[in-house]
Amino acid sequence: MSDVIIGADLGGTKIRSALFDVRGHLLARKSLPTLASRGPDVVLGRIVACLREMVAAAQGQAILGIGLGAPGPLNPWTGVISTPPNLPGWHDVPLRDLLAQEFHLPVYVGNDANLAALGEHRFGVGKGVDDLIYITISTGIGGGIISGGRLFLGADGAAGEVGHQTIDINGRRDRCGNVGCLEVLAAGPAIARQANEAIARGEATAIATLAQAENRPISAEHVHRAARQGDRLARQILAHAGENIGVGVVNLLHLFNPRLVIIGGGVANAGELLLEPIRRTVQERAMEVFRRNVRIVPAALGDDAGLYGAVALVLSELGR
Amino acid sequence: MSDVIIGADLGGTKIRSALFDVRGHLLARKSLPTLASRGPDVVLGRIVACLREMVAAAQGQAILGIGLGAPGPLNPWTGVISTPPNLPGWHDVPLRDLLAQEFHLPVYVGNDANLAALGEHRFGVGKGVDDLIYITISTGIGGGIISGGRLFLGADGAAGEVGHQTIDINGRRDRCGNVGCLEVLAAGPAIARQANEAIARGEATAIATLAQAENRPISAEHVHRAARQGDRLARQILAHAGENIGVGVVNLLHLFNPRLVIIGGGVANAGELLLEPIRRTVQERAMEVFRRNVRIVPAALGDDAGLYGAVALVLSELGR
Repeated sequence: MSDVIIGADLGGTKIRSALFDVRGHLLARKSLPTLASRGPDVVLGRIVACLREMVAAAQGQAILGIGLGAPGPLNPWTGVISTPPNLPGWHDVPLRDLLAQEFHLPVYVGNDANLAALGEHRFGVGKGVDDLIYITISTGIGGGIISGGRLFLGADGAAGEVGHQTIDINGRRDRCGNVGCLEVLAAGPAIARQANEAIARGEATAIATLAQAENRPISAEHVHRAARQGDRLARQILAHAGENIGVGVVNLLHLFNPRLVIIGGGVANAGELLLEPIRRTVQERAMEVFRRNVRIVPAALGDDAGLYGAVALVLSELGR
Repeated sequence: MSDVIIGADLGGTKIRSALFDVRGHLLARKSLPTLASRGPDVVLGRIVACLREMVAAAQGQAILGIGLGAPGPLNPWTGVISTPPNLPGWHDVPLRDLLAQEFHLPVYVGNDANLAALGEHRFGVGKGVDDLIYITISTGIGGGIISGGRLFLGADGAAGEVGHQTIDINGRRDRCGNVGCLEVLAAGPAIARQANEAIARGEATAIATLAQAENRPISAEHVHRAARQGDRLARQILAHAGENIGVGVVNLLHLFNPRLVIIGGGVANAGELLLEPIRRTVQERAMEVFRRNVRIVPAALGDDAGLYGAVALVLSELGR
């Protein structure tokens, strides 16, 4: 019999939970569709169902706590989620207290990208590196900042919105209200948009064929697959996204001076097609003191980074 | 007899030093021209001369330590200055150790903008606010970040280069090697450049007259003075600089989530002419959680912020 921890990750489409030992070994897992459109009560019921399975899987071992990643904005100290864009109907839901009452266990809540950063720091590619920035690139661009081995949270626990930095002052308006944000220029939808625009201009590419074969609209994943097959337009689009991300990374280096930048999220599956232009842009643009000791690497934990981060959060809150 | 502290500030044109009591009251001061062009040995001699006067002014009171602000890049832990652009001939000068040997006192060294942030935090407009960003706008744009009451230094002690964030990806190349930096768009030289360009286009303005009356090239200060007299072009140029700074401030809010942003440096003497467009841009662009609890205010300590910061550094290093 040894101590265990439950980690969970509330996403717009899936709720994932897992049981871990204190060294971060995954012992069991369970996921359920979120059914976000049915509103907070249904979603809360599904979170509880998911967690209950993990409590059962613990088979009486001592559960030290539950860690939960959720979409921001949320307050990491009160565990209240305000109005996440992917969870319709949510407004100031006291998620931490509701779950603590349900399970009579310590519950800790964090922004999903922050927890992914914690996960990579404690169990992934950031192990042993106490100043790092994790960037997740998928439908949006989010991030988590570790400084001196701890999450950098800011005054309201909302720091680290790395996708919402303006890098093109003359650019498009983002749904966040800001203009020319990195997210608008380089996240998945921007990649798909650029493919659609090029196709509308009549450029030759295999991207459309790949999407049509699946009867789906063009996504960043189609661009990535076409690029792997050598498609020239697809490679250009990914290189351009990488350069834009590189500009954002240079800003982060100059502001936070980290030792490591970790690139994760679905779009990062493009690997070197995205990493090479990021690294090149950093070499071209960053000041020497900021670039000479920094590495830019792909994330190691993939979709599970948030789950591992939830465990890391519980361990760190318990001083372990 | 009570304890005293010596603060000093090494600038490209002036060396300033002062004697303080431990509550930050200034007891005596001395400044000398830096004579930077004569190289490090001459400059070091003048720093020592300046400090020696403060040691004499202490009249036998116990000197707890010497704090010194200097232009970066410098390593705050080793006290070595690498190659500051404003100090020709300097290369990896172990400033802290040289002064410690000379005076047999504890010496602490910090980046000048970081120390100004510390000064405003401990003795100025940032008193009691533990998450703040200080921005200095003069020939360049620098900054210091206080998080949880402490300087945010980053892995190499170089964090907080707030002027070297790209906000215009299609902009001019900066002397730092980066493109479209805030500094290139909104520091003093950018303001003067825009005035010159407008005058070359034939726009009506009092700016040129003010500069000619002094037989000097147009500077940001002439633009500021013309603006105070109601000059339309001068007001437009300052408003534009303020909007650009506002974009940079929004980025900083989204990344660091501070409670307070302090605007200092010579260009900030323009006061509301600069602060109003900064605040307006933040209202227009920043996400709600980041802007609702943040204040944007002028610095309180003016040119002395670095001196006060040097004292704050000594006190904080001594755990006081």
